[in-house]
Amino acid sequence: MTARLTSASSAPVRQSSVRAHNLALVLSTVAESADPPSRAAVAAVTGLTRATVSALVDDLIAGGLLTELDPPPRTGAGRPAAGLALASTGPAGLGLEINVDYLAVCVVDLTGVVRQRLVEHADQRPAVAADALTALGRLAARARHAAEADGLVVAGAALAVPGLVSAGSVLDAPNLGWQNVDALALLRGVPELADLPIVVDNEANLAALGELRVAGGEQTFLYVSGEIGIGAGLVIDGQLYRGARGWSGEIGHVTVHPGGRACRCGSNGCLEQYAGQEALGAGEPQAAAALGIALAAVVNLLDVPVIVLGGAYATYFDRLRDGIEAELRRRVLTARLAPVTLRAARLGTNAAVRGAADAVVRGVRDDPAAWLRRVG
Amino acid sequence: MTARLTSASSAPVRQSSVRAHNLALVLSTVAESADPPSRAAVAAVTGLTRATVSALVDDLIAGGLLTELDPPPRTGAGRPAAGLALASTGPAGLGLEINVDYLAVCVVDLTGVVRQRLVEHADQRPAVAADALTALGRLAARARHAAEADGLVVAGAALAVPGLVSAGSVLDAPNLGWQNVDALALLRGVPELADLPIVVDNEANLAALGELRVAGGEQTFLYVSGEIGIGAGLVIDGQLYRGARGWSGEIGHVTVHPGGRACRCGSNGCLEQYAGQEALGAGEPQAAAALGIALAAVVNLLDVPVIVLGGAYATYFDRLRDGIEAELRRRVLTARLAPVTLRAARLGTNAAVRGAADAVVRGVRDDPAAWLRRVG
Repeated sequence: MTARLTSASSAPVRQSSVRAHNLALVLSTVAESADPPSRAAVAAVTGLTRATVSALVDDLIAGGLLTELDPPPRTGAGRPAAGLALASTGPAGLGLEINVDYLAVCVVDLTGVVRQRLVEHADQRPAVAADALTALGRLAARARHAAEADGLVVAGAALAVPGLVSAGSVLDAPNLGWQNVDALALLRGVPELADLPIVVDNEANLAALGELRVAGGEQTFLYVSGEIGIGAGLVIDGQLYRGARGWSGEIGHVTVHPGGRACRCGSNGCLEQYAGQEALGAGEPQAAAALGIALAAVVNLLDVPVIVLGGAYATYFDRLRDGIEAELRRRVLTARLAPVTLRAARLGTNAAVRGAADAVVRGVRDDPAAWLRRVG
Repeated sequence: MTARLTSASSAPVRQSSVRAHNLALVLSTVAESADPPSRAAVAAVTGLTRATVSALVDDLIAGGLLTELDPPPRTGAGRPAAGLALASTGPAGLGLEINVDYLAVCVVDLTGVVRQRLVEHADQRPAVAADALTALGRLAARARHAAEADGLVVAGAALAVPGLVSAGSVLDAPNLGWQNVDALALLRGVPELADLPIVVDNEANLAALGELRVAGGEQTFLYVSGEIGIGAGLVIDGQLYRGARGWSGEIGHVTVHPGGRACRCGSNGCLEQYAGQEALGAGEPQAAAALGIALAAVVNLLDVPVIVLGGAYATYFDRLRDGIEAELRRRVLTARLAPVTLRAARLGTNAAVRGAADAVVRGVRDDPAAWLRRVG
């Protein structure tokens, strides 16, 4: 990160916001260095004075965000400098996921490593929302205790749900049978989570953000999540596109056969009825063709160069690939000019819960000053 | 416009770029004022000194961009101030459009008023590209001469084409039968246009930009252009989304019936085959249903709150509306939470050629310093 603090007005910049900016700058400089940098190296990269960097580093170490590694053995003249690294015993993110046929939780540390992961396979459709979220809370508590025994401090939680979310409420999750479920309030009522900041988001959005972190140079792609339902997260120039009301990505309800099968959403011929996990079990060629039709529509509309398949599609990727690509070649107007890259999610079937935990970690990394205020 | 010059680096800002910024600021302040403002009023709004504003205004008047209106009759003490307005005899934009069954040109002045407009209805498919563009050049020359006789100076031209464009070349326009046509080079070879800066863009993109200028508060919408072919321009937060390679918006080749009619593009079941202008003549209910299926896919994927129908769809809007809305209600997952607004293009069937001319005018208005260098 080389961005400096800039201001679009001539209003004075507050001292506290300069410090917040510089804390984030130092932390990201350490995070993005190939080798653990010394304080002097951080000063050189950021353009801050060595005294300023040292004061900021001391605060970040005290807050559990950075750790100072032992210097390498002395080989020449002078004292070798200690290297700085993100702390693997500091704040961590708790990812939560409720899906139609499983509950999942994971804990990711500041360095991005998954430290705990628990999955409970069970059909959630018979459960009322409060019971399902209580069960998820119990699972989360187990992962949290184990993480804390490992020296980590859970900084917050994010819940991934397969449905339309607005301000912490799940407005509609047809595959779970949820309508207007205040998931945030229910989770806050779970004793083991009551002390944590919690956010609720669509599972494909969180998964897309998770993939973005490990996507290398790919900054524009469509992530598609294949579960009982099908969702998508659209990343454009490194930013998640959420739509006007936050409801983008409902690819599962794109019509692929106008006169086709009835869907739980009230429409018919939806992609979900041909390529959802249940249909996938019944016949992969049909699922691949339906996916190809819907994905060709996305590419024709948005000129997206990369499609990432996650969830069950990551598992079945090799068996779906040819069928999808055949439809893309046929139905994408520009296929002949530039082929579309189709690949399995790097985070595999865990992208959503991992992306949820990552979102919390990213929040701490982007604003370490807020974390220091909490623990200071 | 209240944005000030900001810089993301600590590099010194050049004096010439400060002047360029301030010229644009003064021009946009005049353009966006409800009544013609005095120099003093411009100084108050912009925060620039009265002396600076006066010098900039003098330059803008000399360059034909602003005009000083006679002051109202003297009613009290003191000299009434003259009001400033955009010049209606200054630089103008030349819009050019080639479509399957017509050629169109128009001239728009700095105030946004269409001053000349010529349309020649004729099937362009039998013509080779060079001949079609030569005919368009002749039509443009007539409009240009008339505009110049009216005191305008054509600042540049933009060509709208129904196809995929890259760096001035039309890579593929299946309905015209064009592949890899260097439209920019051909237009530069037309004597009547040889002295003008020219850009080439997709017709739906230019039309969407044209609609954006007259869209009032709507900053996120999909514009759909119904001609022989069907294109779309997606505007998100006031910006045209062009896609990774500039090929977004190919809604005409979204599959609406996977086993359906063969399309010129090599695929089958494309929207164009059911809702293009030729199909529209054959049956509006079928066209409306097909449009509704494709537009529902757009809304499910992108959560776009407004859809603007242009070209022939603007003409037939009242007869298409119910059929499209029925499909949107059925097939958009969030239709029950928030309906989608469907409306006819405010620029009617002329949105593309008008948007092309507007794009030139907007270029002059956004960078008046460049214009002053050309004429100074």
